[in-house]
Amino acid sequence: MTGIALVGYGAMGRAHAMAYRDIGFHYGLPADAIRIVGVATTRRETAHQAAIEIGCALAVTDYRSLIQRDDVHIVDVCTPHDSHAEIVIAAAQAGKHVYCEKPLARTLAEAERMAEAIRAAKVKLGLTFNFRFFPCVLRAKQLIDEGFIGQIFSFHGRYFRASYIDPARPMAWRLRKAQAGGGIVIDSGAHLIDLTTFLVGDVAEVRAVTDTPHKRRPKAKGSSEMEDVDVEDMAFVQLRTPDGALGTWEMSRVATGATNDIWFEVRGDKGALRFALEEPNWLYTYDTRSPHKGFTRVETVGRYDGQLAPDWTAPVGVPRAHAECQYRFLKAIWDGREPSPGLDDGLRVQRLIEAVYRSAASADWARPV
Amino acid sequence: MTGIALVGYGAMGRAHAMAYRDIGFHYGLPADAIRIVGVATTRRETAHQAAIEIGCALAVTDYRSLIQRDDVHIVDVCTPHDSHAEIVIAAAQAGKHVYCEKPLARTLAEAERMAEAIRAAKVKLGLTFNFRFFPCVLRAKQLIDEGFIGQIFSFHGRYFRASYIDPARPMAWRLRKAQAGGGIVIDSGAHLIDLTTFLVGDVAEVRAVTDTPHKRRPKAKGSSEMEDVDVEDMAFVQLRTPDGALGTWEMSRVATGATNDIWFEVRGDKGALRFALEEPNWLYTYDTRSPHKGFTRVETVGRYDGQLAPDWTAPVGVPRAHAECQYRFLKAIWDGREPSPGLDDGLRVQRLIEAVYRSAASADWARPV
Amino acid sequence: MTGIALVGYGAMGRAHAMAYRDIGFHYGLPADAIRIVGVATTRRETAHQAAIEIGCALAVTDYRSLIQRDDVHIVDVCTPHDSHAEIVIAAAQAGKHVYCEKPLARTLAEAERMAEAIRAAKVKLGLTFNFRFFPCVLRAKQLIDEGFIGQIFSFHGRYFRASYIDPARPMAWRLRKAQAGGGIVIDSGAHLIDLTTFLVGDVAEVRAVTDTPHKRRPKAKGSSEMEDVDVEDMAFVQLRTPDGALGTWEMSRVATGATNDIWFEVRGDKGALRFALEEPNWLYTYDTRSPHKGFTRVETVGRYDGQLAPDWTAPVGVPRAHAECQYRFLKAIWDGREPSPGLDDGLRVQRLIEAVYRSAASADWARPV
Amino acid sequence: MTGIALVGYGAMGRAHAMAYRDIGFHYGLPADAIRIVGVATTRRETAHQAAIEIGCALAVTDYRSLIQRDDVHIVDVCTPHDSHAEIVIAAAQAGKHVYCEKPLARTLAEAERMAEAIRAAKVKLGLTFNFRFFPCVLRAKQLIDEGFIGQIFSFHGRYFRASYIDPARPMAWRLRKAQAGGGIVIDSGAHLIDLTTFLVGDVAEVRAVTDTPHKRRPKAKGSSEMEDVDVEDMAFVQLRTPDGALGTWEMSRVATGATNDIWFEVRGDKGALRFALEEPNWLYTYDTRSPHKGFTRVETVGRYDGQLAPDWTAPVGVPRAHAECQYRFLKAIWDGREPSPGLDDGLRVQRLIEAVYRSAASADWARPV
Repeated sequence: MTGIALVGYGAMGRAHAMAYRDIGFHYGLPADAIRIVGVATTRRETAHQAAIEIGCALAVTDYRSLIQRDDVHIVDVCTPHDSHAEIVIAAAQAGKHVYCEKPLARTLAEAERMAEAIRAAKVKLGLTFNFRFFPCVLRAKQLIDEGFIGQIFSFHGRYFRASYIDPARPMAWRLRKAQAGGGIVIDSGAHLIDLTTFLVGDVAEVRAVTDTPHKRRPKAKGSSEMEDVDVEDMAFVQLRTPDGALGTWEMSRVATGATNDIWFEVRGDKGALRFALEEPNWLYTYDTRSPHKGFTRVETVGRYDGQLAPDWTAPVGVPRAHAECQYRFLKAIWDGREPSPGLDDGLRVQRLIEAVYRSAASADWARPV
Repeated sequence: MTGIALVGYGAMGRAHAMAYRDIGFHYGLPADAIRIVGVATTRRETAHQAAIEIGCALAVTDYRSLIQRDDVHIVDVCTPHDSHAEIVIAAAQAGKHVYCEKPLARTLAEAERMAEAIRAAKVKLGLTFNFRFFPCVLRAKQLIDEGFIGQIFSFHGRYFRASYIDPARPMAWRLRKAQAGGGIVIDSGAHLIDLTTFLVGDVAEVRAVTDTPHKRRPKAKGSSEMEDVDVEDMAFVQLRTPDGALGTWEMSRVATGATNDIWFEVRGDKGALRFALEEPNWLYTYDTRSPHKGFTRVETVGRYDGQLAPDWTAPVGVPRAHAECQYRFLKAIWDGREPSPGLDDGLRVQRLIEAVYRSAASADWARPV
Repeated sequence: MTGIALVGYGAMGRAHAMAYRDIGFHYGLPADAIRIVGVATTRRETAHQAAIEIGCALAVTDYRSLIQRDDVHIVDVCTPHDSHAEIVIAAAQAGKHVYCEKPLARTLAEAERMAEAIRAAKVKLGLTFNFRFFPCVLRAKQLIDEGFIGQIFSFHGRYFRASYIDPARPMAWRLRKAQAGGGIVIDSGAHLIDLTTFLVGDVAEVRAVTDTPHKRRPKAKGSSEMEDVDVEDMAFVQLRTPDGALGTWEMSRVATGATNDIWFEVRGDKGALRFALEEPNWLYTYDTRSPHKGFTRVETVGRYDGQLAPDWTAPVGVPRAHAECQYRFLKAIWDGREPSPGLDDGLRVQRLIEAVYRSAASADWARPV
Repeated sequence: MTGIALVGYGAMGRAHAMAYRDIGFHYGLPADAIRIVGVATTRRETAHQAAIEIGCALAVTDYRSLIQRDDVHIVDVCTPHDSHAEIVIAAAQAGKHVYCEKPLARTLAEAERMAEAIRAAKVKLGLTFNFRFFPCVLRAKQLIDEGFIGQIFSFHGRYFRASYIDPARPMAWRLRKAQAGGGIVIDSGAHLIDLTTFLVGDVAEVRAVTDTPHKRRPKAKGSSEMEDVDVEDMAFVQLRTPDGALGTWEMSRVATGATNDIWFEVRGDKGALRFALEEPNWLYTYDTRSPHKGFTRVETVGRYDGQLAPDWTAPVGVPRAHAECQYRFLKAIWDGREPSPGLDDGLRVQRLIEAVYRSAASADWARPV
């Protein structure tokens, strides 16, 4: 039985908790293979309510006591960005594996400190880059690896939300650099950056322009006191790979009309692929070798290898991707392998985030360090 | 704590089991509010494996012992059609509430016997008409009830699958009238029939044509011995409502290119609506009063009243609809209300199925009895 | 130089006139290969204005004088349904070929009288079944003929418009049986019926239900005097082919949200096809033999054989289909071949229209005579 | 009667010639209002064949003689880019108005020389920026002008083609800087640049990255002799407007899977718009003030003001946009107004093209001069 300490219980904490339960049904595991030992949140009431929902005995406000327990093997970190480093390092020092919400950290320096602790403790770290694990995305990866695309000419990714178009929406931690580490790039953008590098490999350099349409917001709901927003709401980025392919990233949380519009496409000399979260059960493929010239809207769920479990629940939603992401992390732990996505992925994404910000500041191309 | 006996553990049994666990996370219930007490399947190994997955102590091959238990309050029936009547009646006689996979029964007569038992025992019955519970469908219902459509002119529904286009696919219980009660109409069609009457109300008469392209199939995989198929693979139905609106149903499991293509639309003098399971997170609405003439692709998750819980897991998949369906059933039980969908819905669908078959046999219009 | 007498100059007269001019550009013909000699309409002003637009010398109100001229070789009939018979017969008796807007006639009897006149005069008749001639539809026909679909299981066609949802829209010739011969079936439906039989061949029997939601309408715009509507606004039809395939037609002009929504699909044991006028430049194909399971959105313009001319004007619109239809008619005349679509197609469609009406009246299956 | 000299008769020459004929039918003009007096092409046979198709008496290889004629009022230039300057200047010096295919010239310097000649001669110049004139785009412009979008946050445009993915495709004038002035940016990109500035106004600065995957191509079909390609096949551009909105352009002719995929979107604090040539009859609008949260697929043909003529030929194709573009040019000439798009638009697009190339060369932001 693998014991988990859940730290943080907002929407993502709840999503992770449910996914741990669902894993058994997707993969035929014993119900007691995974157990959430306890939950820690900063507010006592939340912790208490969380423990009731989850059905675990322990609800604490001090995560440190929880993660020390012998029956805890994994610490799952679902807190805001500014506490990732502290919790992950504490978990590593307690000899626990870590499953951490994206992004790894607020800054690359912070991420590297975390990496040192992880490596020093010889524990393993996984990350919630769950968008990799839609059946369509797994199939896309498989097709790319098989050479379906051929030589990549260009690739394009987008993450658009409309969550901050209202200037009356008050300040929150996601709008403060000190707490979040940045704006759309480090938050939603982390998913897009991971997805891109997962699918097409390394990015050699980036050139970004960013902006924040609403530069001041109310300190609190309805307040007339205003606070400066010091992070970006939009970022548009040009990319170059080591092989010379060009790409773009478009990220915005003031993209009117979008809800959770993550999207990518890859085009090469043999074929092309498109995926959009707005239709998460369909992968669009274009095969230059086919006599029928057009994009094929392929249903992938349960149809192709590379998906660990057939899925009896299509069309799937986001919870399926969380369950798959968490299962693969657990499987790696059980098998003694490095998780994928793991520490290196977290660091790569962090380096690219840092490069995007450096590029935006210098108004020039920047290479991830 | 509400105790559940799960009878049957195929794909649907597993889907129900997972949904019982997910409910707590969607609605903030204590983890111990719902407990699967035991699972019964005809094969010992399956029962055993199921109990491990579910995390329940009891795994039996004789469901009768299980459902008698005092800690069982609800019997959830996920078996093939030919055992629904026996199990539901036994559960009722044991004084248990029942949550039954669609269709209620193989025949209307059978369904009426079940209804008698349910009523006699003063227990409640709910049904897995889970497609009602996509956020889009709930919003469609709400719009219709608010008069958004106005006077309905016509409505159209479709359930297309391609599961039986291969003539080499061997016989199975779904292809035998004695076991399934019919073909596509009673199986997938039950969902479509429920969805239609849920949204637009009663159907006064139906006129059906049915066919089975592959009239003989191998007795078993690879076998050269053939067996007659005595149920329909396609049914196309004309409908008339008491108010004189016209409708159509199209059902097929030899619809090449379809996977799980359930779809409906309603058109009236004020507006129109469309929903398709191929894009389960979008409801299409047309408002004759809007200056922008066109269908709007509306995202409904968490945005409108009538959804019991906001959803932090959009885009949603089929498991979300199961969880909502089961939660509403449980809530009705806890509140002492009739579940919806309940016995009357099950009987209405059964009467319409019977009318479709009667119409196909007589080559004339038929009214549900 | 082929001389044309254009009879009628509403929207369709104008569309035909423009198409005669466009033909040369699409097929590299001399500009003087086709000449509209004159135009006849019932109102002098319209005729005059038409002649100016067209650039022809003759504008008459009595078509009989026009069609007798030696420099007229073809009579193009774009008048309401109730004058088709008279004009076509007169043209035939004058020894002229005829290009006639759909439907051929108000009734089968009328159509047969026209056919007799055509045959007796040994002239040729073509019809404006222009929807056949979208590049996508020509490609669909080609694929079906090549066996791409295999054994057809079912096919479905729809023609939805919303033109009569407003009860205040006053009476007009299309709403009177005496003038139009029927409602949606004989009007827009004629296109759908032709398209279906063009693609999948003969229909052996039909079973229709029809209705008219607004049964009385103002005699004129704003008038309080009401007139009964004696034709149908909706028709839903079940079909059976000689080979036993099943089909459906859905026709409505009270389909809220539709503008000109003609749509068909064919599904068989090897593949499936879909086409919709809402996206007239895309043909959807599903190939069971492909490793990529899904519908492919194929762009057909200029890509496949069977299109007489490559098209430098994609995406194409309705005018392209008119030009193709008229060109093929003219080519047949020039080559001394029967046009396709020709008299037999016009009669087949008329027989099916008659069968639909007979079925609706008898509430039973009807076979075209 | 307005006389036109058509110079060049490739696909665009033919498209323009047909559009001049179609204009009368769309706008109720007399057939003799517009007359193509003659056609000039470099090859005698092409000119001769063109004159036959067009139905004009004159076919010449020396355009200079043609444009001098008194019955020529307008010179329509459909030749490759490298002869635009010479012909336009000659036409201006002959006192003729000019309708010129995009782009105006190969370089900004060349364009400015043309502008001088146009201004000196006090003639007018129109341009084939025909994509402006799809009914959807006209409606988009109208909505933007009415404030539907509000404050623009970002806008995105794309023009993707796959015409040069095959490395065996030989050299042609579009692949040589001396002849074309550049690659995708100056060719297809000119449309996108015009469309963007038409809709959202001026662009203050651009930052481009460009590349050419196939850097050498066969000198001729099948030849083993190779020639360097000195123009770009891809360009990805970041934009900033004077008001601080951000935008992107994506241009590629190695975009596998695309045929003629021109696309734009605009997002602001009140609404959003999307248009794609792949579905040219639908405009997508998002209205933050609507209770139905989603993009509405609006059919615009004939429904809104700002379209000079109602259109009886929906769905429309590219020829409709050419006819509208040419009609508006002619109407401006007839009314003595500056055409729109006119010389200023041509120069603005040229300045932006130049800025894109300057930016790509300097790897920095560039402002149009």
